[in-house]
Amino acid sequence: MNQNKTAKAVDFDKIMDTVRVFAPATVANMICGFDILGFAVDYPGDEVLMHRVTAPGVRIRSITGDEGRLPLDADKNTVSACVKMLLEHLGISREIGVEIELIKHMPIGSGLGSSSASTVAGLFAINSLLGNPLTKEELLPFCVEGERLACGHGHADNVAPALMGGITLIRGHHPLDVIKLPVPEELYAGIVFPKVDVPTRDARQLIKEKVLLKDAVTQWGNIAGLIAGLYESDYGLISRSMHDVLIEPTRAILIPEFYVMKQIALNAGALSFGISGSGPSVVAVSRGKEIAENAANLIQQHLTDCEIDSLKYVSPVNIDGPKIL
Amino acid sequence: MNQNKTAKAVDFDKIMDTVRVFAPATVANMICGFDILGFAVDYPGDEVLMHRVTAPGVRIRSITGDEGRLPLDADKNTVSACVKMLLEHLGISREIGVEIELIKHMPIGSGLGSSSASTVAGLFAINSLLGNPLTKEELLPFCVEGERLACGHGHADNVAPALMGGITLIRGHHPLDVIKLPVPEELYAGIVFPKVDVPTRDARQLIKEKVLLKDAVTQWGNIAGLIAGLYESDYGLISRSMHDVLIEPTRAILIPEFYVMKQIALNAGALSFGISGSGPSVVAVSRGKEIAENAANLIQQHLTDCEIDSLKYVSPVNIDGPKIL
Repeated sequence: MNQNKTAKAVDFDKIMDTVRVFAPATVANMICGFDILGFAVDYPGDEVLMHRVTAPGVRIRSITGDEGRLPLDADKNTVSACVKMLLEHLGISREIGVEIELIKHMPIGSGLGSSSASTVAGLFAINSLLGNPLTKEELLPFCVEGERLACGHGHADNVAPALMGGITLIRGHHPLDVIKLPVPEELYAGIVFPKVDVPTRDARQLIKEKVLLKDAVTQWGNIAGLIAGLYESDYGLISRSMHDVLIEPTRAILIPEFYVMKQIALNAGALSFGISGSGPSVVAVSRGKEIAENAANLIQQHLTDCEIDSLKYVSPVNIDGPKIL
Repeated sequence: MNQNKTAKAVDFDKIMDTVRVFAPATVANMICGFDILGFAVDYPGDEVLMHRVTAPGVRIRSITGDEGRLPLDADKNTVSACVKMLLEHLGISREIGVEIELIKHMPIGSGLGSSSASTVAGLFAINSLLGNPLTKEELLPFCVEGERLACGHGHADNVAPALMGGITLIRGHHPLDVIKLPVPEELYAGIVFPKVDVPTRDARQLIKEKVLLKDAVTQWGNIAGLIAGLYESDYGLISRSMHDVLIEPTRAILIPEFYVMKQIALNAGALSFGISGSGPSVVAVSRGKEIAENAANLIQQHLTDCEIDSLKYVSPVNIDGPKIL
């Protein structure tokens, strides 16, 4: 039977009873690299606590930190749906039962890859529980499918860095071709999430289908410069390269005080400032923790002055991706 | 006087009597990097023999290898015009006299940076003759200006690799920001120039002003992949990345047998195949000399079968740019 054949990789005697996994938030696009670049951060992120149970099937035991926004129905919840999909792929969905506790430590719809962090945590957890039958590279397509379920499009720019850690380049989607890029040691992100609602779908729909070739050339010159800057640990080049002339002008409209925040970040010495994913979170990419911290504090102070609530995260680039706690 | 002040760098006692310089041909765009990437080759290229003479001013003594197509009038010839511009910049145009012999070893209008090779040879020659008052970086804007005089647009994608050598990235034009990229050791170019006329101006005018964002994303994913591939010496990644979905489909129309030549090159094991600059020269970028040689031979054979005359050049990536002979 095909099911048994594929299940060979899983040693049933070695399946763990329980595993707790943290998967990181991510900054998709990395300011200039729309749909191809992204990086993970150490904090925030989501946690999945997974228990093996006797009754086969995948169930959600609890979700916390989501303000009741995520479905507990295992067929509708992205995390459980992905876990189920993986068990089916391994041909052991009728033999294995798991229950999931999802602990969200980050806001939903923030532009920080909230759904990706949960999906990656869930898939990394089931893979760990089963004794790692799949490599990270093999897990990635399942994560992308999870992103499609959650957001309606199967982009990998959040799940790739969340799963692989570090800075990832998605050279192409068909077939998926993900390259890990070097991470300059002093690179920090000062992230601020202004508590306004910018659904990913809307943020994508605003973007024009056609762009001027000359602007595209500017954009890919910057993308190429950023890649070279990362390999050279050349912070000056990184700073000169991290400009988005194509997407930011449109998406910035949805983010209150965007250009004021940008000026604040650059005045504070940030290498660059821009939108994280589709927003509304913004990121001050900085050399060293102090500048990132300072930029984020000043931005948050300005939002407070404007009576806009916000959350703040300061983190180096996360290197390893998900981890077992 | 301002003239004397700027001229300080030139030691009149140390000016050479004569200098002979070779500057390399270049493959602009490097297939996927329209207007931002380019590399130099060891062969072909152009030569400038420059003589110091008593009478101030810049004159063309002779031009060979151009089939009489280039102007001997020093004001109209790009090489002499650039040399004059540099002497004026240094404030010594009234003190110094030079005569130029331009020996062209490559066809004009071939898409191999013919005008750039001449301009770079001329400017490198005068700078050498004067004892190198300018660095290569400082010479570059004069080369770009020469390109503007020759082609009507001041792109640096030929002059930058011709002057700097190796593979160059033009991150931005305003201000000019050129980065030298690493050159994987085994990278070879098998170049074939089909003797058909494709003026640069026409080739540029064919290109659409607007492109689909999704195609631009594909293109910059490939550009980013190529840069990473060069840093990693990852020939597989280089090969997967060197695809041009935006410019090639339009420009290929002007090049006879383009898609047949492409198939021949890829069948011969080339990493990639595409148009050099605005064509009509084509390039099979290959790992190792043998594949490049073989691809170029087979392509040339096919063109002969189609009764199209051609020239063939096989070369590694040139590392150092212009050299004194």
